Amino acid sequence: MNLSEIILDADRLFIGDEIPRDYLNEKQTKAKNLHALAYPLTKGEVVDLMHYAKEKQLVVIPSGANSGLAHATEAHEGELLIDFSKMNRILDFDLDTLTLSVEPGITIGEVQKYVQERGFFYPPDPASKHSTIGGNVATNAGGMRAVKYGTTRDYVRQMEVVLISGEVLEVGSLAIKNSSGYNLKHLFIGSEGTLGLTTRIDLKIIPLPTVNQSVIAAFPSLPVACEAVISIMRDGLDITACEFFERDAIALSEKMLNTPFPSQKGQAYLLMTFDGSSQESVLAEIARLEATIKTHAPEEIVLLNEADTVTAWKLRDSILTAVVELSENEPLDLSVPTNKIATLFNYTKEVEAKSGLRFVSFGHAGDGNIHACVLRGDLSEAEWAVKRHEVLSELYQYVHDIGGLPSAEHGIGLTKKPYFDQVFDSSYRHYLKQIKLAFDPENRLNPGKLV
Amino acid sequence: MNLSEIILDADRLFIGDEIPRDYLNEKQTKAKNLHALAYPLTKGEVVDLMHYAKEKQLVVIPSGANSGLAHATEAHEGELLIDFSKMNRILDFDLDTLTLSVEPGITIGEVQKYVQERGFFYPPDPASKHSTIGGNVATNAGGMRAVKYGTTRDYVRQMEVVLISGEVLEVGSLAIKNSSGYNLKHLFIGSEGTLGLTTRIDLKIIPLPTVNQSVIAAFPSLPVACEAVISIMRDGLDITACEFFERDAIALSEKMLNTPFPSQKGQAYLLMTFDGSSQESVLAEIARLEATIKTHAPEEIVLLNEADTVTAWKLRDSILTAVVELSENEPLDLSVPTNKIATLFNYTKEVEAKSGLRFVSFGHAGDGNIHACVLRGDLSEAEWAVKRHEVLSELYQYVHDIGGLPSAEHGIGLTKKPYFDQVFDSSYRHYLKQIKLAFDPENRLNPGKLV
Ligand SMILES: Cc1cc2nc3c(=O)[nH]c(=O)nc-3n(C[C@H](O)[C@H](O)[C@H](O)COP(=O)(O)OP(=O)(O)OC[C@H]3O[C@@H](n4cnc5c(N)ncnc54)[C@H](O)[C@@H]3O)c2cc1C
Ligand SMILES: Cc1cc2nc3c(=O)[nH]c(=O)nc-3n(C[C@H](O)[C@H](O)[C@H](O)COP(=O)(O)OP(=O)(O)OC[C@H]3O[C@@H](n4cnc5c(N)ncnc54)[C@H](O)[C@@H]3O)c2cc1C
Repeated sequence: MNLSEIILDADRLFIGDEIPRDYLNEKQTKAKNLHALAYPLTKGEVVDLMHYAKEKQLVVIPSGANSGLAHATEAHEGELLIDFSKMNRILDFDLDTLTLSVEPGITIGEVQKYVQERGFFYPPDPASKHSTIGGNVATNAGGMRAVKYGTTRDYVRQMEVVLISGEVLEVGSLAIKNSSGYNLKHLFIGSEGTLGLTTRIDLKIIPLPTVNQSVIAAFPSLPVACEAVISIMRDGLDITACEFFERDAIALSEKMLNTPFPSQKGQAYLLMTFDGSSQESVLAEIARLEATIKTHAPEEIVLLNEADTVTAWKLRDSILTAVVELSENEPLDLSVPTNKIATLFNYTKEVEAKSGLRFVSFGHAGDGNIHACVLRGDLSEAEWAVKRHEVLSELYQYVHDIGGLPSAEHGIGLTKKPYFDQVFDSSYRHYLKQIKLAFDPENRLNPGKLV
Repeated sequence: MNLSEIILDADRLFIGDEIPRDYLNEKQTKAKNLHALAYPLTKGEVVDLMHYAKEKQLVVIPSGANSGLAHATEAHEGELLIDFSKMNRILDFDLDTLTLSVEPGITIGEVQKYVQERGFFYPPDPASKHSTIGGNVATNAGGMRAVKYGTTRDYVRQMEVVLISGEVLEVGSLAIKNSSGYNLKHLFIGSEGTLGLTTRIDLKIIPLPTVNQSVIAAFPSLPVACEAVISIMRDGLDITACEFFERDAIALSEKMLNTPFPSQKGQAYLLMTFDGSSQESVLAEIARLEATIKTHAPEEIVLLNEADTVTAWKLRDSILTAVVELSENEPLDLSVPTNKIATLFNYTKEVEAKSGLRFVSFGHAGDGNIHACVLRGDLSEAEWAVKRHEVLSELYQYVHDIGGLPSAEHGIGLTKKPYFDQVFDSSYRHYLKQIKLAFDPENRLNPGKLV
């Protein structure tokens, strides 16, 4: 079969030179002379594309909204790029089992809106609202609410996957409990498009919490704030979001947005949210929080009104943009045990002193997910390349040595692969490769990413 | 190396005929002429045993307390049986990250007791309190509280696994968020000792809820009770346990224990528990429960006092024993979407009518886990064998067709393998086999189980 027999609509298939320049400039800057760009709409089309790719021995690259931060959709000469963004319908919302069935190209923003309008809730919350659910599943996206609700992994009941062979697997189940063989669902989640192409996802939906309350706690220093986080978790507080940042970091947002953060005391903050089904239960939990935090000598604890809640979260959300305005930088996505956040923070201070590179650190304290940014400052391109690699190589090793991981929620892709290979030993990586080969023996599906 | 150079203590190594008769009679009735039975105490011994097994090309069978219900520890002539029950120490309890590190042979009962005495909680709760954590992980054991707290899978942070090659992998992490490569942890959990031998497990522990309240709701029929369960889940009630059974089932326990169940009305029951950190929050949740249940015309709703709580759960826990007293039977462990419990129940009634075999159904309604028992009654052994296979074959197909799975929490092992092979297509099973071969290319680790 020819490509034009598989995909009949002209606006969903671009062969070679037909691929719009804009698309390449915006989304695939390294992709010279691609074989084709296809936008499938059905599982059948994806299966046919796989048979075609097999016949022509093409490399296949799946992509969603291309918002991923690990360069895991990078395509090269002669490859077949499959863009799922038009395969984006809601298929079913079953209220009995609270299951929303969607095609992979729907955005997380649309999913959240759809269920919210009906009184329900899809908790995973990456800041990139235009990213697709297919991409979220492939990277196991997380976000701020993971400390209470978990990550994308926890909200996939079942999915349909097309393998590079063209075979179709249903993995997972609408039945909740499962001790029926190796868990393929969990294997495909987070596999960054290297094991199969997701063509349908049945998501777990939950009832919408009706009450939300945000709280700021200001501390004399970040290590003290980190001690408070450990107590919060040990006391089992039912906390929905627990973000940390230094005054220096939020000051960048304050300057950019020209708005003050609702606390001006102290050198480090926890910005927290509690949610629930009644005002009383949320306030009871916040009373417990205050008792816990007071044992850590905070500068102040502020319960936010509605306006300040919006301001505080807007400033928090803008830290990364403010950092980008300040300097080119490498945004990291480190994951460490919650009792190692302060350790890692102190280490970045040492690296700062030694290397002269500035770090801005913030992130999800409740689950040890640190988005440290390493700033280029005024280094030349060549100096930055050398110094960045040197610093990152040492940093990833340090993170590994204190029991952490290179990626909490963005994935490995191409960006972190050298460091992934550095910190995981060859025996471990051998078995990952064996798994890859089990599903893709010719290494034609998103090769070079992750494994 | 010889076996006696690997394991130095005589009471931890039995070669060939030395294996105690009692052990074989009790735990390995099919095991004639085993190569040896070894009780390792350290990872190093397990690694050495694997090298020895490789040299001699032995099949290796891992076993915990041998309480599993899927015959997944069955050993045969010439095989090396590894019993982990003596490798059973608690290694560490880290209060900062709430992580309990244990050796695989410790029992679930000991783990629960250890953390509870310190004000903490390990939620997975298989009724078999003498089963080992290693076995629980290998079967992804569940229990009554899974509807709120999840299964064993959700409480493994990290584990150490020895492969058949003798290589050692650390899978998972103490860091909570993980988008760093294929998720080997989830692959090993539930793999029934066919991919590797677990030698250390780092368990997630949570604070102990201080308040518990059980409730019975009596309904005119099981399908009506099932409708109520769907509403309970849709309303997002924070329910810890939600068991269902018919009057006929609990009547067997009442007779055996000579004690009445705290409700005598209706033909079907939900026995529920709520837990939390304050009396108010638990009672608020129960008020919501009552409102939800009242829309389903219950015969009565009974809040249980302490004595009745003990009685009610004792009667519930005794259903299986009472069924066993009544007749030899095949206890099933079906998993169906929560809105298919009544469908399945009605189907078993049809099978009863058609086959003449009696079914006693009960189980975990909140997560669609049905422990239906098929009773032999007064059939001869030969008749029972034929009829049982006939009925099970049709039943497992039916469960598959309504979106269910053959095992919710016991595993596939040998017992369910024919039905597993029947309902999953050969393409699906091919990929499971590829995964098995990735870790065990010579098929020497617990072969014939699951895959
Ligand atoms: C501003 C910004 C903020 C962000 N904030 C967060 C955050 O808070 N938390 C967080 O976790 N992440 C965050 N991210 C990263 C986030 O992980 C990605 O944006 C998202 O998950 C990727 O979705 P996508 O549709 O853009 O996928 P892409 O970037 O197109 O692809 C990502 C990966 O998924 C694969 N893939 C895509 N579709 C499929 C499919 N149908 N089948 C198989 N494989 C597929 C690709 O091959 C690739 O490996 C952020 C990103 C940005 C730009
Ligand atoms: C009365 C009774 C009630 C039960 N109730 C429940 C219940 O409510 N919920 C529930 O989920 N289950 C229940 N079960 C079954 C339960 O799953 C098993 O009892 C338990 O999980 C198995 O533990 P074990 O130590 O006995 O393992 P075994 O039976 O010895 O082995 C089970 C599997 O684990 C593997 N294995 C054991 N140790 C290791 C290791 N260290 N490394 C690798 N593989 C290993 C074995 O090879 C085998 O595949 C019940 C069983 C009984 C007898």
